[in-house]
Amino acid sequence: MQTKILVIHGPNLNLLGKREPNIYGKFTLKEINNKLNKLADSLNVKIKIAQSNHEGEIVDLIGAAESKFDAIIMNPAAYTHTSVAIRDAISAIKIPVVEVHLSNIYAREDFRQKSLISAVCAGGLYGFGAETYLLGLRAAVCLSKPR
Amino acid sequence: MQTKILVIHGPNLNLLGKREPNIYGKFTLKEINNKLNKLADSLNVKIKIAQSNHEGEIVDLIGAAESKFDAIIMNPAAYTHTSVAIRDAISAIKIPVVEVHLSNIYAREDFRQKSLISAVCAGGLYGFGAETYLLGLRAAVCLSKPR
Amino acid sequence: MQTKILVIHGPNLNLLGKREPNIYGKFTLKEINNKLNKLADSLNVKIKIAQSNHEGEIVDLIGAAESKFDAIIMNPAAYTHTSVAIRDAISAIKIPVVEVHLSNIYAREDFRQKSLISAVCAGGLYGFGAETYLLGLRAAVCLSKPR
Amino acid sequence: MQTKILVIHGPNLNLLGKREPNIYGKFTLKEINNKLNKLADSLNVKIKIAQSNHEGEIVDLIGAAESKFDAIIMNPAAYTHTSVAIRDAISAIKIPVVEVHLSNIYAREDFRQKSLISAVCAGGLYGFGAETYLLGLRAAVCLSKPR
Amino acid sequence: MQTKILVIHGPNLNLLGKREPNIYGKFTLKEINNKLNKLADSLNVKIKIAQSNHEGEIVDLIGAAESKFDAIIMNPAAYTHTSVAIRDAISAIKIPVVEVHLSNIYAREDFRQKSLISAVCAGGLYGFGAETYLLGLRAAVCLSKPR
Amino acid sequence: MQTKILVIHGPNLNLLGKREPNIYGKFTLKEINNKLNKLADSLNVKIKIAQSNHEGEIVDLIGAAESKFDAIIMNPAAYTHTSVAIRDAISAIKIPVVEVHLSNIYAREDFRQKSLISAVCAGGLYGFGAETYLLGLRAAVCLSKPR
Amino acid sequence: MQTKILVIHGPNLNLLGKREPNIYGKFTLKEINNKLNKLADSLNVKIKIAQSNHEGEIVDLIGAAESKFDAIIMNPAAYTHTSVAIRDAISAIKIPVVEVHLSNIYAREDFRQKSLISAVCAGGLYGFGAETYLLGLRAAVCLSKPR
Amino acid sequence: MQTKILVIHGPNLNLLGKREPNIYGKFTLKEINNKLNKLADSLNVKIKIAQSNHEGEIVDLIGAAESKFDAIIMNPAAYTHTSVAIRDAISAIKIPVVEVHLSNIYAREDFRQKSLISAVCAGGLYGFGAETYLLGLRAAVCLSKPR
Amino acid sequence: MQTKILVIHGPNLNLLGKREPNIYGKFTLKEINNKLNKLADSLNVKIKIAQSNHEGEIVDLIGAAESKFDAIIMNPAAYTHTSVAIRDAISAIKIPVVEVHLSNIYAREDFRQKSLISAVCAGGLYGFGAETYLLGLRAAVCLSKPR
Amino acid sequence: MQTKILVIHGPNLNLLGKREPNIYGKFTLKEINNKLNKLADSLNVKIKIAQSNHEGEIVDLIGAAESKFDAIIMNPAAYTHTSVAIRDAISAIKIPVVEVHLSNIYAREDFRQKSLISAVCAGGLYGFGAETYLLGLRAAVCLSKPR
Amino acid sequence: MQTKILVIHGPNLNLLGKREPNIYGKFTLKEINNKLNKLADSLNVKIKIAQSNHEGEIVDLIGAAESKFDAIIMNPAAYTHTSVAIRDAISAIKIPVVEVHLSNIYAREDFRQKSLISAVCAGGLYGFGAETYLLGLRAAVCLSKPR
Amino acid sequence: MQTKILVIHGPNLNLLGKREPNIYGKFTLKEINNKLNKLADSLNVKIKIAQSNHEGEIVDLIGAAESKFDAIIMNPAAYTHTSVAIRDAISAIKIPVVEVHLSNIYAREDFRQKSLISAVCAGGLYGFGAETYLLGLRAAVCLSKPR
Repeated sequence: MQTKILVIHGPNLNLLGKREPNIYGKFTLKEINNKLNKLADSLNVKIKIAQSNHEGEIVDLIGAAESKFDAIIMNPAAYTHTSVAIRDAISAIKIPVVEVHLSNIYAREDFRQKSLISAVCAGGLYGFGAETYLLGLRAAVCLSKPR
Repeated sequence: MQTKILVIHGPNLNLLGKREPNIYGKFTLKEINNKLNKLADSLNVKIKIAQSNHEGEIVDLIGAAESKFDAIIMNPAAYTHTSVAIRDAISAIKIPVVEVHLSNIYAREDFRQKSLISAVCAGGLYGFGAETYLLGLRAAVCLSKPR
Repeated sequence: MQTKILVIHGPNLNLLGKREPNIYGKFTLKEINNKLNKLADSLNVKIKIAQSNHEGEIVDLIGAAESKFDAIIMNPAAYTHTSVAIRDAISAIKIPVVEVHLSNIYAREDFRQKSLISAVCAGGLYGFGAETYLLGLRAAVCLSKPR
Repeated sequence: MQTKILVIHGPNLNLLGKREPNIYGKFTLKEINNKLNKLADSLNVKIKIAQSNHEGEIVDLIGAAESKFDAIIMNPAAYTHTSVAIRDAISAIKIPVVEVHLSNIYAREDFRQKSLISAVCAGGLYGFGAETYLLGLRAAVCLSKPR
Repeated sequence: MQTKILVIHGPNLNLLGKREPNIYGKFTLKEINNKLNKLADSLNVKIKIAQSNHEGEIVDLIGAAESKFDAIIMNPAAYTHTSVAIRDAISAIKIPVVEVHLSNIYAREDFRQKSLISAVCAGGLYGFGAETYLLGLRAAVCLSKPR
Repeated sequence: MQTKILVIHGPNLNLLGKREPNIYGKFTLKEINNKLNKLADSLNVKIKIAQSNHEGEIVDLIGAAESKFDAIIMNPAAYTHTSVAIRDAISAIKIPVVEVHLSNIYAREDFRQKSLISAVCAGGLYGFGAETYLLGLRAAVCLSKPR
Repeated sequence: MQTKILVIHGPNLNLLGKREPNIYGKFTLKEINNKLNKLADSLNVKIKIAQSNHEGEIVDLIGAAESKFDAIIMNPAAYTHTSVAIRDAISAIKIPVVEVHLSNIYAREDFRQKSLISAVCAGGLYGFGAETYLLGLRAAVCLSKPR
Repeated sequence: MQTKILVIHGPNLNLLGKREPNIYGKFTLKEINNKLNKLADSLNVKIKIAQSNHEGEIVDLIGAAESKFDAIIMNPAAYTHTSVAIRDAISAIKIPVVEVHLSNIYAREDFRQKSLISAVCAGGLYGFGAETYLLGLRAAVCLSKPR
Repeated sequence: MQTKILVIHGPNLNLLGKREPNIYGKFTLKEINNKLNKLADSLNVKIKIAQSNHEGEIVDLIGAAESKFDAIIMNPAAYTHTSVAIRDAISAIKIPVVEVHLSNIYAREDFRQKSLISAVCAGGLYGFGAETYLLGLRAAVCLSKPR
Repeated sequence: MQTKILVIHGPNLNLLGKREPNIYGKFTLKEINNKLNKLADSLNVKIKIAQSNHEGEIVDLIGAAESKFDAIIMNPAAYTHTSVAIRDAISAIKIPVVEVHLSNIYAREDFRQKSLISAVCAGGLYGFGAETYLLGLRAAVCLSKPR
Repeated sequence: MQTKILVIHGPNLNLLGKREPNIYGKFTLKEINNKLNKLADSLNVKIKIAQSNHEGEIVDLIGAAESKFDAIIMNPAAYTHTSVAIRDAISAIKIPVVEVHLSNIYAREDFRQKSLISAVCAGGLYGFGAETYLLGLRAAVCLSKPR
Repeated sequence: MQTKILVIHGPNLNLLGKREPNIYGKFTLKEINNKLNKLADSLNVKIKIAQSNHEGEIVDLIGAAESKFDAIIMNPAAYTHTSVAIRDAISAIKIPVVEVHLSNIYAREDFRQKSLISAVCAGGLYGFGAETYLLGLRAAVCLSKPR
């Protein structure tokens, strides 16, 4: 059966491309999604993509994912640093979550360097721009395979 | 007139029963709600029960409760540690709020030991599993009575 | 062309007038909005007013404002102290944001004295009650003019 | 066989009734003990009550309790915040301890908000005045029953 | 009788115009004072303006102001972050003080984000350049009127 | 009626004279008590003197003092820095407590500079050796008089 | 030869009597000075009294005092918490300094509880209102005598 | 003359053997005391052993030890982390104190890693179970010999 | 011309396979190197692999890499948290560095969560076991290509 | 044209020679000034020397220096650790400032190790006694030459 | 078979005897090694002794020790407080490590009181001078025996 | 006899000239060494120069320097902030050490502002580029002369 992966883009990622391009890169979210879909096809996995600015909606998405997906790729964006609710949602499910960040969050403001999410994710990637998602998809596929 | 109490279950409590049962116990939310309804009947009070993963919805619920209920029982879950908005909503109303936690939050991670909510609640209970809600209902009934 | 300004009232401001009047003043939100509309007319600018208890909705509002407004006046209320998502939304747009607070937040609890929002706003005002919004409108009009 | 529960009142609780009644309520310790005895009778459990201002005596009481009681209800009062010795005594025994506080300690001075005791208790209650002890007795009885 | 307002410019503001113009703006103190006088005339209030680099002189000015003025507008500049003496002087008088800052101090060094002064002011404004003083004058006039 | 004052010497003060005389001075506790008695006679007040190494005993002494004395002079010694129980005992009574320290505790180790006791005392004195007690007695007599 | 003592009143003490009388008492500085002069006469010592709002002036006074006085009584007021310069001045002279505070500074704001001055004073007194100065004079006289 | 050593077991060590044996080992206090007596005989020194749960009693024991013993071996247990009074008692006497801990306190909770006692002891040992006391006795004997 | 990449394994990675396999996985360093070589071949890049337990040697390796390699993949292991020297070496060269960690360092001890290295790397990956290096190689290849 | 350098001695340096000579050395300020004048002559630069205990006067001196001097040598003494006003004055001018300290401030009290001034100086020297000023003069001359 | 123990002396211990003898004692490293060899003979164990100033060499030594020794005695000296690499090396091997310190590190500078090493050692000793090593050898022998 | 001085360049200084020239200046290490040799000749002192990226090697160099040199000039670079071992080596020898830094480390990252080395050096200089070494040589020569 085909591996199924849920991709969650967190708050403000809908603005990608025009939002501080020196930090987040010049790609729009649509272009990143196209790249993800193309790589998913070539790796023969199925992906579903969602974006939300609402902490509660992301909690809903994660809570409902367990029965339908084999892994989650998530860019929690601003909620990385403030959401215990998303952390608890990840803890509550048994499928692995891969955390991705477009920019090098460790080279930015102090408050962006404390993550509430990382400790409950399987693993993570940061700093490679749009490429981060593609490497994240490869990582998620690995975690979904029996090891 | 009959005492009316609002019960608010915070984020991820919809997953109860399958979420880390060693911490949160083996009961589902539905089973806890059944126990609450049964005790409410025997104490001759009326309860209404809501669950939400959305901080904003919980703020809405509290803001609208003052004219309709005599007290609130709330398990703020993850929002215990991050929501100034819920704290402000509780401060803004005049009916008492009883804080409940299924697990002993003080025996867990450091960030779960700072509560933004407790200081504005009338009182609270933690650590007795499903029983915590039932004791919380008794407490809320006491607070609703003229003292 | 007429200057257009978005006014965003954050969480619990719908309860204004009955919420701790010794701190927040005796005006209701409706009365403040009336004052704002009257001053906007006299200054010949156009304003649109929104209130939300939901962090995600406020992020949506800000992200969509850039093409439609020349400036934003925002009372982030409780989210001042907890929302990196709102901060990121403000950073992502190019129109100036004016932060307003009805009360003197620096004379209150410690956690109300750390703002995640101020650093990305153009400027701010605090402590003048309903008058704070009116001064904020004047400030926003100034920022919208070529300097 | 009848359930047996030890109630320990910590330092300064002998002064109850005249000590800052706006914080601790108007009941004397004797009146609270009477209420406890009455409820114990109605629940058909046996309780023994002790009060001490001495940290060492409370350590002695806990260390000796294991073979004689099924659970402990304790208001550690000031020692909540300073006694590692009482914490170690609780850890050393296998019967459950229920922590009770008459006032909402989370709405008071900073140093009252760090508890050395809570992490090793089964659960706890705070803020319901004399009623806190009665709810605590119900909780202790639940914990003493096979679950 | 005509409202009388004292304007106090704190340390280094005599250097305005040549001091880091990217932060403090291109206006000299004299130009700001001219704008203030013009607005005062149009609002029909009387203002007196003082500048000092000396903490003790500012304390003297505040202590002597109560009997002669209806409100104070002060840019405490560097003393915002270090002077308990100025704070105590403001606490000692009964007329309201409006705090103004030309730049957005919250977007600057950490040590500029802790204010010893704000908690005892009536309200404040920051970040609107020379305009901040003009809005501050309007605020001071409001505070001087019976409310 | 004659003013009655209780003097409490805290832990290790029984060793005075031989304990680090460079810090605590060369007087024994007995010599200090003689000086106190002599001054009490000359001021026509009655004093009772107690010494204890036990936190619980000091709590007992304070709790029982209210009905028998007009003021307390206490050198809490090591318990200054660790005892919430003694603090609570002082808060629970209505007669004033004067805190005395033989040495200048502010010129010593860091942990001796945080006092849990001072905030609930009427006032205090430190650093004048045996003379500190005598000045403390004068202060206690003043506080006992109608003001 | 007659003992000579310098009394220094720090910033804002010129406002005594009208400044927050619930904290600082109802006496004016002049009344306190009269009491001091009267006690000095009765103890047969000579005192000189100065008041300044200027940190630099207080540093000047201390630096010049060594050759002219046997001891200093100082209420450093706000400079207690911020002045390393006054601390260094006290360290630089060899006559003893007695620190006095009218109010119990340990029962007030956090920033008033860290003293930069105490560690270099001989001893100190706080919390007895105007009486604090009189006890401080007695203490200074003791320190001036051969011990 | 024969070397004489006092052994003090701190709070909860009376429960040894049944208290968390995975941390504290399987030996009872009586078995450790037997081992100590046997080694003392073979080293030809005299030991006296005491156990107390009371901070005040331990302070009494130390204060009285100087004239009767050549060294002290102490396991301060919980009081390691909270007792300034025991620290002061050790500072007040001139015979050396050897600190022993059965478990590796540095591999446990954070609050067990700050010792108030170590700085005033001659030296210490931790982590070797019952053997720690025997090595501690050897150390104490060394310290009692002229070096 | 062929892309050339330097792989640096930090301290203790020579022990891989036997070192805490539950944290670091069951692969030996040799097996990981084989996987890396195989992937490098398939991606048509050239890699050189080094391991060192010496901070100074790693600094040497980085300083010399600029002229010979297009990118560096580094697992700084323990030096992640302590080495300013390695950080400075990375800052001093212009080729990108990719940071990799076998385990999820954010789910481990506190001191492993502060990285001195991340801020000066291009990007990083953690938590995918041996796979982390392979994804890291893909990332390094991307960074080496003109973008 | 001849290089002109301003030397500013901060608070309490007028007491040099008698002030804690073990820390500050045995030279008086006059002797240091003589050495400075002699070296200035031999280097063919012109110096002007000022001393003040007043923070405000030092701010005045710096603000007025830009048009008259090519560099400043300053020993900010106690104001090193407390004066944001002096820091701002240095930032406001364009000529370089060289910070000098007679003693090794890093081997003294903690509060002397945080400098508010260093970050805005060109460079600094500490610990060489009177020689520090002479090396500082050489440094200032270097900074004043075209580089 | 004979027990084999590795003794590792950390940085600067080669300077023993001349390095601050008031802290580290008057013995040279050679004399300590002689004492160790003599005691090893009498206990019938075999020891090998190494000294290094290089963190990396110590990591090498520990990593290679597992197959050749039954236990390690280590004085990590300065690396106690800074080396995560040595900590990780100890964690990676299965033989017990005994930590020794010649001086009482808890009576010294603050930064010497945080140990990165202790938590992963079996146990430790401090403060008995050269004797510490001999007691450490006895402890290591105990740990090497079946318990 | 001729004064002999050891110059130690710490980690990454071999990269000088190409490493972040905006921070460290445009001179190579070789050019700085030439300047140092030339000044040494003119001052008639003998210098030996070493560079190392290895903490252990620097510890070795310092430990061996006492018998061969009269003073050390050291730029500890990155090890300034992390090496207790280098600090201990400096404490262990009796010749003075002069600390030099090319850049103003106090105007850089937070972690560069805590020095472990400065407290044990005789004195230091920072921020004058290559000139810092030359002034440092003059300082070292002064310290080597009888004072």
